Amino acid sequence: MQAEHKFREILKKIKAYGYVLSLVGWDSNTEAPRESFGRRAEMMGILSRELFALQTGKEYIKAIDELFENLDNLNDQLKREVKKAKKELDKIINIPENEYVEYSKLIQITQIVWEDAKKNNDYNAYKENLQKIIDFTKKFALYYAPNNDPYDTLLDEYEEGMTTKEYDDFFGILKKDLVPFVKKILKVSKNDYDKFINDSYDPKKQEEFCDYLIDVVKFDRNRGLMKKSVHPFTWNTSPEDVRFTTRYLKNYVFSSVFAAIHELGHATYEQQISTEFDDTMLSGGTSMGIHESQSRFYENTIGRSLAFWETHLDKFKELFPEQTKGITPKDMYRAVNHVEASLVRVEADELTYPLHIMLRYDIERKIMSGEATIEKLPELWNDLMEQYLGIRPETDSDGVLQDVHWSGGMLGYFPTYALGSAYSAQIYYAMIKDLDLDVIIKNNELEKVNEWLKEKIHKYGSSKTPKEIIKDVTGEEFNAKYYVKYLIEKYSKIYL
Amino acid sequence: MQAEHKFREILKKIKAYGYVLSLVGWDSNTEAPRESFGRRAEMMGILSRELFALQTGKEYIKAIDELFENLDNLNDQLKREVKKAKKELDKIINIPENEYVEYSKLIQITQIVWEDAKKNNDYNAYKENLQKIIDFTKKFALYYAPNNDPYDTLLDEYEEGMTTKEYDDFFGILKKDLVPFVKKILKVSKNDYDKFINDSYDPKKQEEFCDYLIDVVKFDRNRGLMKKSVHPFTWNTSPEDVRFTTRYLKNYVFSSVFAAIHELGHATYEQQISTEFDDTMLSGGTSMGIHESQSRFYENTIGRSLAFWETHLDKFKELFPEQTKGITPKDMYRAVNHVEASLVRVEADELTYPLHIMLRYDIERKIMSGEATIEKLPELWNDLMEQYLGIRPETDSDGVLQDVHWSGGMLGYFPTYALGSAYSAQIYYAMIKDLDLDVIIKNNELEKVNEWLKEKIHKYGSSKTPKEIIKDVTGEEFNAKYYVKYLIEKYSKIYL
Repeated sequence: MQAEHKFREILKKIKAYGYVLSLVGWDSNTEAPRESFGRRAEMMGILSRELFALQTGKEYIKAIDELFENLDNLNDQLKREVKKAKKELDKIINIPENEYVEYSKLIQITQIVWEDAKKNNDYNAYKENLQKIIDFTKKFALYYAPNNDPYDTLLDEYEEGMTTKEYDDFFGILKKDLVPFVKKILKVSKNDYDKFINDSYDPKKQEEFCDYLIDVVKFDRNRGLMKKSVHPFTWNTSPEDVRFTTRYLKNYVFSSVFAAIHELGHATYEQQISTEFDDTMLSGGTSMGIHESQSRFYENTIGRSLAFWETHLDKFKELFPEQTKGITPKDMYRAVNHVEASLVRVEADELTYPLHIMLRYDIERKIMSGEATIEKLPELWNDLMEQYLGIRPETDSDGVLQDVHWSGGMLGYFPTYALGSAYSAQIYYAMIKDLDLDVIIKNNELEKVNEWLKEKIHKYGSSKTPKEIIKDVTGEEFNAKYYVKYLIEKYSKIYL
Repeated sequence: MQAEHKFREILKKIKAYGYVLSLVGWDSNTEAPRESFGRRAEMMGILSRELFALQTGKEYIKAIDELFENLDNLNDQLKREVKKAKKELDKIINIPENEYVEYSKLIQITQIVWEDAKKNNDYNAYKENLQKIIDFTKKFALYYAPNNDPYDTLLDEYEEGMTTKEYDDFFGILKKDLVPFVKKILKVSKNDYDKFINDSYDPKKQEEFCDYLIDVVKFDRNRGLMKKSVHPFTWNTSPEDVRFTTRYLKNYVFSSVFAAIHELGHATYEQQISTEFDDTMLSGGTSMGIHESQSRFYENTIGRSLAFWETHLDKFKELFPEQTKGITPKDMYRAVNHVEASLVRVEADELTYPLHIMLRYDIERKIMSGEATIEKLPELWNDLMEQYLGIRPETDSDGVLQDVHWSGGMLGYFPTYALGSAYSAQIYYAMIKDLDLDVIIKNNELEKVNEWLKEKIHKYGSSKTPKEIIKDVTGEEFNAKYYVKYLIEKYSKIYL
């Protein structure tokens, strides 16, 4: 009991430091003036050290160890909390401090090295840093779990319970059942809406439409807000303060619209978590994959549905009468679901997107097994691109250099993007047993969808694992066939 | 040397906590969602306690005491720092903890009691709280300086070096030389611009004009930004991050315009302080009065000048062609300098404003001496209002209940508002010996004014006292005659 008391006391302090550091991050990403960052880094350094001292302090370690030794006597929630705390702790304290410091510096420098390399299409200037990051990442994974495949350790870090075995199965199904279908669609897909899609849209009016979407999704304005930033993201400190951003590109209105709906998915998840977890290890969404399943559900299953544009095109046309002249809901539906083989992941459509992830998973797999050397990555990338999507990047900037993740040491992260979409499809088929989604969208009653997701997923925060969520919501284990089924149904109807 | 090292080390930590608490405050006042404040208070409570523990910790007290004992051996800057630190410390540690806690709660509760009382015009529901606050304030002042007049202690807290003796002289001059002049002007002043002033102005366009003013004042956008809030204010953590707000009232465009110029005065001061003081006790502007002198200078001396509107009315008319039809620079000049006896301080014009402050000083004086009982305040207020401005409030909401300051324990604060305007006038007469202000405004070269103020005032931060500043800038002690002279010159030209 005393150990639990101590654990709670220190955890609450950790939360308070996390709270302010997080708010500083929000400010940095949305409005802080350019020259404020020097002073800011200095001040944040001091508080980060205070936080680190708390997180790795003797008292905290002792409390967690004591609780961990008595795991069997704890209630379920506390048991899960202690396991999580122990895992987080072991990940930090098993790394020698000098290596951690060296790694942190490497990550910071590589951010800039990568930016330059991408700008100059110069993979050679970047590859040595990447090699060092890979080496560190492997080493750290082995410090934590010496007997585990390091890639399995990394995969679990981004999605609890997932291993190479399961991802191999998942991507195996996509390779077998989805890739041929995508190739078929790519042959018949054509874009009749170029002019409409890339017309000029006043950013202020775009903002007005995104603001309208807040009410469509029934996002609670008393517990959140929308702002703009260079890269859209969702931010939260508690369910009572959830914020998200979008961005406004003059010549690509869909960017703001679908970024907003996507982030509204993340944000609704965070808003609907029970506040009882605020002071525990179980606050926030349970995993990257489950989080992405929610954002993709709102973005693709709702936002890119025919029913959605039958309901909301009028508002869109009211704001953009010139650009949308003659456009029908069906035109809009086609335009927002246009399929095209493209080189850059973040611009990919819903159907080709998982192939971009599959490629990255294949490469990470080979990097971690040592099968692919750093020298070979660009070629390997381009070959796989050709194999899956039939196009070949002309530059490494459009190929192996395009994403920031590896420069940040995030190996094992990418697969969660595809997994999220696949979860989303499986959840969708469970949902439509209870709800008539089309009617709900047409009646502008998304609060019913929110409520369903809240009761089945959101309210639990991190108190359930991703696997428990999927099992409890859908009645079965994760099954990739739903994802393939969903994509084939939707895109056959549009294109075949 | 070791004491200085320790002092610097802890001070830097204190700065880091201050930094994040301050950023949270900025967020609270500009965008935090309504329901975020519960969790926020809890998290801030934890960090405030950490900060308080640092500020009153044995190590810090020991370091300061050691340095204070060796004051004569320290260099000038460190000497001033140690004196300030010692003063701040003594103010806190001499108050018994239970009294401080009780007082803090009282202040929090009274905020709400005052809001309700003002809304319901119910002074009786508020007066007991006010009495308690007055009692605490006196008691705390006596803990700090048992042999000093408590009001002198309070006055010094808001404006270093100022006492009742000096303020009596100051307001005595205003009473003798300014009040008769104001009465004369009030007799002849009439408002020919009602329709123009209170016409409807699109808030978005108002924002555009305020944004334009940022460039007029040559405020550095890389080290600051403008946002909106309910009550305009300036905020900063270092000269590299200075932000200010304004507000947009549809039917009173001057509110946003002059709040923006006013805050730009505060903000320019903060931006131009030397960054060498960042980690010291001497960061930030030196006093309330000097700060207010800068904001009033930009707002009134620059922003309400004829030259200013000869230069910028075109831009204003471009944004508001309908509302400004036929308006000349001279009309604008008259409209923004319209004089009228009014009941509410924050809506008062430049000429009658100091009379509102004089009234509050008279009352605070009598409260602190015990001459005025809490029962008598409303009547006293109304009598003085009639005496100075010839009008009498019909409700206490428009009288004694109008300001928030006393509810927050801020007795001794008001006089700095008038003092700031008076400083501003004295500085103005010094400035025009060096600069042709009219020509500078007409040439849109306010960087020259900024530079002059930077070299004479801003760059020193708090390393000089207000009295040193005034002496060094103007070559003489503070002299209220300049203020009277400035007002009589300006308003005679307009009205007589």
